[in-house]
Amino acid sequence: MACCGNCFCCQCCCREGDTRTPEELTILGEIRDEEDEILPRKDYESLDYDRCINEPYVEVLEGMDNKKAKKYEAVRWMMMFAIGVTVGLVGLFVDFFVHLFTKIKFTLVGDSIEKCTDKGCFPLSLLELLAFNMTFVFIASVLILIEPVAAGSGIPEIKSYLNGVKIPGIVRLRTFFCKAAGVLFSVAGGLFVGKEGPMIHSGAIVGAGLPQFQSITFKRVKFDFPYFRSDRDKRDFVSAGTAAGVAAAFGAPIGGMLFSLEEGSSFWNQALTWKVLFCSMSATFTLNFFRSGINFNKWGSFQLPGLLNFGEFKCPDGDKNCHLWTAVDLAFFVLMGVVGGLLGALFNCMNKGLAKYRIRHIHPKAKFIRVLESLLVSLVTTVVIFAASMLLGECRDLSAPTTHNTTVSISSPSYEDINSTIRQFFCTNKTYNDMATLFFNPQEAAIHQLFHQDGTFSPLTLAVFFLLYFLLACWTYGVSVPSGLFVPSLLCGAAFGRLVANILKVKLGMDIYSGTFALIGSAAFLGGVVRMTISLTVILIESTNEIAYGLPIMITLMVAKWTGDFFNKGIYDIHIQLRGVPLLEWETEVEMDKLTASDIMEPNLTYVYPHTRVQSLVSILRTTVYHAFPVVTENRQNEQDFMKGNILVSNNVRFKKSSVMSRAGEQRRRCQSMKSYPSSELRNVCDEQNTVVEPAEEGEDLLQQMLERRYAPYPNLYPDQSPSEEWTMEERFRPLTFHGLILRSQLVNLLIRGVCYAENQSSATQPRLSYAEMTEDYPRYPDIHDLDLALLNPRMIVDATPYMNPCPYTVSPNTRISQVFNLFRTMGLRHLPVTNAVGEIVGIITRHNLTHEFLVAKLRQHYITI
Amino acid sequence: MACCGNCFCCQCCCREGDTRTPEELTILGEIRDEEDEILPRKDYESLDYDRCINEPYVEVLEGMDNKKAKKYEAVRWMMMFAIGVTVGLVGLFVDFFVHLFTKIKFTLVGDSIEKCTDKGCFPLSLLELLAFNMTFVFIASVLILIEPVAAGSGIPEIKSYLNGVKIPGIVRLRTFFCKAAGVLFSVAGGLFVGKEGPMIHSGAIVGAGLPQFQSITFKRVKFDFPYFRSDRDKRDFVSAGTAAGVAAAFGAPIGGMLFSLEEGSSFWNQALTWKVLFCSMSATFTLNFFRSGINFNKWGSFQLPGLLNFGEFKCPDGDKNCHLWTAVDLAFFVLMGVVGGLLGALFNCMNKGLAKYRIRHIHPKAKFIRVLESLLVSLVTTVVIFAASMLLGECRDLSAPTTHNTTVSISSPSYEDINSTIRQFFCTNKTYNDMATLFFNPQEAAIHQLFHQDGTFSPLTLAVFFLLYFLLACWTYGVSVPSGLFVPSLLCGAAFGRLVANILKVKLGMDIYSGTFALIGSAAFLGGVVRMTISLTVILIESTNEIAYGLPIMITLMVAKWTGDFFNKGIYDIHIQLRGVPLLEWETEVEMDKLTASDIMEPNLTYVYPHTRVQSLVSILRTTVYHAFPVVTENRQNEQDFMKGNILVSNNVRFKKSSVMSRAGEQRRRCQSMKSYPSSELRNVCDEQNTVVEPAEEGEDLLQQMLERRYAPYPNLYPDQSPSEEWTMEERFRPLTFHGLILRSQLVNLLIRGVCYAENQSSATQPRLSYAEMTEDYPRYPDIHDLDLALLNPRMIVDATPYMNPCPYTVSPNTRISQVFNLFRTMGLRHLPVTNAVGEIVGIITRHNLTHEFLVAKLRQHYITI
Repeated sequence: MACCGNCFCCQCCCREGDTRTPEELTILGEIRDEEDEILPRKDYESLDYDRCINEPYVEVLEGMDNKKAKKYEAVRWMMMFAIGVTVGLVGLFVDFFVHLFTKIKFTLVGDSIEKCTDKGCFPLSLLELLAFNMTFVFIASVLILIEPVAAGSGIPEIKSYLNGVKIPGIVRLRTFFCKAAGVLFSVAGGLFVGKEGPMIHSGAIVGAGLPQFQSITFKRVKFDFPYFRSDRDKRDFVSAGTAAGVAAAFGAPIGGMLFSLEEGSSFWNQALTWKVLFCSMSATFTLNFFRSGINFNKWGSFQLPGLLNFGEFKCPDGDKNCHLWTAVDLAFFVLMGVVGGLLGALFNCMNKGLAKYRIRHIHPKAKFIRVLESLLVSLVTTVVIFAASMLLGECRDLSAPTTHNTTVSISSPSYEDINSTIRQFFCTNKTYNDMATLFFNPQEAAIHQLFHQDGTFSPLTLAVFFLLYFLLACWTYGVSVPSGLFVPSLLCGAAFGRLVANILKVKLGMDIYSGTFALIGSAAFLGGVVRMTISLTVILIESTNEIAYGLPIMITLMVAKWTGDFFNKGIYDIHIQLRGVPLLEWETEVEMDKLTASDIMEPNLTYVYPHTRVQSLVSILRTTVYHAFPVVTENRQNEQDFMKGNILVSNNVRFKKSSVMSRAGEQRRRCQSMKSYPSSELRNVCDEQNTVVEPAEEGEDLLQQMLERRYAPYPNLYPDQSPSEEWTMEERFRPLTFHGLILRSQLVNLLIRGVCYAENQSSATQPRLSYAEMTEDYPRYPDIHDLDLALLNPRMIVDATPYMNPCPYTVSPNTRISQVFNLFRTMGLRHLPVTNAVGEIVGIITRHNLTHEFLVAKLRQHYITI
Repeated sequence: MACCGNCFCCQCCCREGDTRTPEELTILGEIRDEEDEILPRKDYESLDYDRCINEPYVEVLEGMDNKKAKKYEAVRWMMMFAIGVTVGLVGLFVDFFVHLFTKIKFTLVGDSIEKCTDKGCFPLSLLELLAFNMTFVFIASVLILIEPVAAGSGIPEIKSYLNGVKIPGIVRLRTFFCKAAGVLFSVAGGLFVGKEGPMIHSGAIVGAGLPQFQSITFKRVKFDFPYFRSDRDKRDFVSAGTAAGVAAAFGAPIGGMLFSLEEGSSFWNQALTWKVLFCSMSATFTLNFFRSGINFNKWGSFQLPGLLNFGEFKCPDGDKNCHLWTAVDLAFFVLMGVVGGLLGALFNCMNKGLAKYRIRHIHPKAKFIRVLESLLVSLVTTVVIFAASMLLGECRDLSAPTTHNTTVSISSPSYEDINSTIRQFFCTNKTYNDMATLFFNPQEAAIHQLFHQDGTFSPLTLAVFFLLYFLLACWTYGVSVPSGLFVPSLLCGAAFGRLVANILKVKLGMDIYSGTFALIGSAAFLGGVVRMTISLTVILIESTNEIAYGLPIMITLMVAKWTGDFFNKGIYDIHIQLRGVPLLEWETEVEMDKLTASDIMEPNLTYVYPHTRVQSLVSILRTTVYHAFPVVTENRQNEQDFMKGNILVSNNVRFKKSSVMSRAGEQRRRCQSMKSYPSSELRNVCDEQNTVVEPAEEGEDLLQQMLERRYAPYPNLYPDQSPSEEWTMEERFRPLTFHGLILRSQLVNLLIRGVCYAENQSSATQPRLSYAEMTEDYPRYPDIHDLDLALLNPRMIVDATPYMNPCPYTVSPNTRISQVFNLFRTMGLRHLPVTNAVGEIVGIITRHNLTHEFLVAKLRQHYITI
């Protein structure tokens, strides 16, 4: 009888299995990719977005009026603003230092190379560059040693969090510092990583921390609102922070809002969405304000929207035949989408292999191995870019690039002038090195080059650049430094797009705008790698600040996603899967509707009674790992009827069988655990049977009597009648009427605060806890093993009814999976009790029961039994 | 016993009441704005977004595999594309003809005025203009006589539809033709109306009609998918069509998507949203393709995104000190937001008064009165613009306007050249008339003038223009012609913004960009009138194609909304309220959580049994208006226990009292209706009592027995035991175990198709209907009164169980309102049964029980009883 809480030992179903038909799966049976099984697994907790409306909460509610509600609303808006501004400042900090470090590095190394072009002392320049890069990467890597969850882009973690899975340490202050500082060094260290992913993660941490922080650290700043101390509020703020992160990274407030909607809410909450948009706007414009002020000394104007922007795509004035794109180009965009999807799938496949290798062979070893790997990547990257620039770059005439497309707008000069980033390294006077122009610049500048510089790059250079970048970026993602994936993918894709443009323009003589093709290439490759849809479309549109690109970007992303999905999942989903996070998809497949709630629920329940002895509670809490327990009464009358075959309807027939079996097992376990219990008093509890006194009531005025009974709906009949192994079949079979759900944390809290009453007293003598007392320890509730048993009288009785959630959403056993899934995901539930037509609980559904892998397994079973 | 279906006699709660505290309301009691009460009310049906997973549906499901599901998905994408393209073409059609008519009119009248400037024959010119305008308006008005729901902007109706309320005729083909043709003439007729609202409505109709159309009219185009024949699918397509309408109207695909999310879904469905975005993109770019092709003869390029666009806001090249806006301007924007909110509130207040007057005094009268009103408005408008231009316009030097801001981009020349729309009417050579420039141009051109022309307009002209426009637009909205509100509001607001800019620039000598102020003025006024948030922000950003305006537009809209909400609701909500549509808000107020489901549910239930006689069904269907009936069995055992006071838990005590009372009443009604029943056979049914044969089963192997019983969960015990008036109190009091919900339309369908079995046969002999047969008549199901009773054998029994919805979402009576509301709104439910802890149905919640007015009334009751 196990009310399965949140122990997720999610099987990592390999993608290839999904393309098989169910019939094939049935025949194949349990055959799985053996490899996946040996990866280590973690258990994750689930977040609860539903409100638990128990008595303490109702007390708070009763004291609530419109005025208070408005004050509360105002605080929320202020919080959103604060989060936005903070995220903007974080972005500013990251940008400023990355810019500074990169500038110093490239200036020094550049000078050295220019000197050496004459003298031939390139090894010295290389060493200089190596020293810079490896030092930076070493620092980044050491920061990750301090807080390992700060590695990578953080988007998989945030996606999991917003989906409702708590990943330990993911929104902690320490993670924030390691991430924000680490990304400075990993980007400045010349690794092929972006700062956008870590920005998004940082934003999420700010969102989670800021509203909590004020009430913990600064005790004086006290809100009279105990509301922010719940998963629900925290998740809202994390949504906002994530959106602000995207907004600051790309200058895309609408894209940020949609990102948090797409990855997070399953739920369209207009008021929240409006606040989230406000938060992202605040972030974008805070960053914009300070960057414009610092870079141009024009305080008060707004000219540099995001950390990454694509510059202005514009035909030269006066050229009336120039179009950014035409209907004919769309056909090429579709093809590029297909290729981008294929390349993305290849990238993901390779990266998945690498990640598995790392999990198996690197993570279990000493931590400094990870640092060594980072340094190795840094070493190889540096040598490759140096060698490639020196040996494979083409020296081209300097006059060429300035002929066309000089319209880099003055009003948004993110990288002052596009020609200032052209590199003459390794080339003689009046020529420049096209490979070095791409490699010896910040990645954003290289993207600008590919988007806006016409005729600069030879096809061979682009192809080599693409290949090297592809391989190195793939190797880098997953190394233990903070590392975003957006910018490398964009750059890689831009090279691909530019290559296509070169071929079309030079070889086929078509009249096209190269910048558009580079942009579409970026979109195609990025789309193929990350497989995001709505939000990515909007982010890219906002980054180009050109609504006219809407259709081509959207079509490219769509085609890239469909092509890629044919082979594997998006990179973030792959990493989520490797971590074993029980993520819920958007919706279930149509086929899953062949299953019903009873097919997938967990029929083993560990239940508590409305009035339970302390000893039983302690035993239950110590011997199970479940996070919620249904509060039930045993419905003897129903049971007797059932035995007589007299009851009219009982559609919980099927699942009773397993329930009976497992209930016996649970009973055995519980008894054993009690026998090993320290207090001798508790030892023989299994053998005890309390005689039950049923209050005999005389029915005079039926209505009156019922109306009075309203206030005592839970008669104190079975204070502590633990099921025993000596029970007959019939006894074990008692139907359990469901009354509510109580969380482990709530029960532990009750025990720790001594909320109980003596046997000979009324339950009204039990002390009452306020809402503030119930949530004081959020989010780290004490463990049952921290409890000092000596302080507890095991014979006391706990009345759980005021603290349980008396009316969680429930479903009937016949409900179809799509409906169960919708309810669960949309309402952000953690536990969904399954009750039959007469109100008896027959099972519980948790996140674990709704993951794709679990459903696929159950569907296979379903086909077998048919 | 009334399972309240969807009879909404929603009280139009006047807004002023809301600002009172609940305590005041309690004291004031039932005092309401008497005026509102006399407005005629309509009953509206509700849409059902939930799936009814009955046996026919399960049959379809069982035949479903991944291949079929993918085919189905592909058809959906194709549909979305088709909808998008069609909406784009509709936009093209409207735009083309409006352009044509307007051009002819202004060319002829302009020529006449220019001649008359010398000759002094202005009355002739006025007559000419009047002839044009009144003819056009007459045609528009006559079209509305044909289909009255095509009047107005259509946004309130579409908002209601997406909210889940079916408004008769709103998505019909006839409405579409009247709307699309009507808006041509009302806009060309010089009324102060826009074509954007009607475009959105037309889009919604295309969305609703296209996927249905193909399966009805062209029988040959047959999809093997019976899926599109449900409210759920229709609502999805209407969302897409609406989004496409917005996208085509404003060239704002993302805004369109967000509009349909904000107004429609309560539900974030990623797959659907992605399709909706695709649909809006298709619409925008179809329109763009054809308009660019037709206007510039450049087929294949994309230069004219939407019907309305704002041109490019851009500082003149080389002017480095020019900024579109600075941080200092934000303070003015906030102030303008406040003023915009106030003006909007005034507009709404005046329009509400007018609308009430129209409902009371014009609508009840002969229909041609409405035509006369339209003509009167047209007459006054024409005379006013003529007189104002002639008498109040200022003649200004022609050279002035061309000095500054000549940067109207060549790449997006929506109105070829901004100077081509300057009017010299009534002025001598070398000067132009600023008032005439605003009045004698299409409204879009006037908006362009205000946004991009510098120094053209005198403050006096702007003030007079604003005032006249404000009053006439307010009068016009609600006249029976198709009339949008966006463009008039934008123009009015632009004049206001420009006025502010003039004052700041000329009087205070500030260095500002006038266009930005005009834009912000537009946003402020429009925001004050319509009070939309997220989608309006995005629509305006997309229309300006400048992400840098994000923050100012957002802040202005926010302030305008908050200011306006202080006084009244948005104009669309006001009109929805006046129509008495039971709209569900976004969420309930926090205070409402003091109520529980049992406080607001409808306790009177009209129920049916799993096996019911035809005569009973006919009687129930003929004597009630409810749209759904719970299928129940009487839980005798529970009842007996209850009498003995022996049952452990029954928290349905409170609401039983009223239920008992009303059940007796219902019984009386039912008997009376049967007595007046035509067939003599049915007359004495009340006195009949069938003897119930309980199948006695011997329990040998308990588990085996239960497992077998699974397939016959509904024993045929009470085929037709109608409750009789002779029953004792106890008999009437039987608890009803809830098994499912069956819709009126389903029951009528069963009766019409003769789905029943004879008393002496097994229920297995009953004919079975397929899913296609069940939904064939969607959306117009036959009425019970169309049923030929002579064809029915009243003694036959109908087994409703295969056709009912066996597992709708249910809630417990203690569930708090916010949870009930969330479930209801998010899942798009139509009926939400309330069941107690032992599975007995105690009430039903429908949309009516969740409207703001109803909840406020119940909360007042709650305060009284405390």
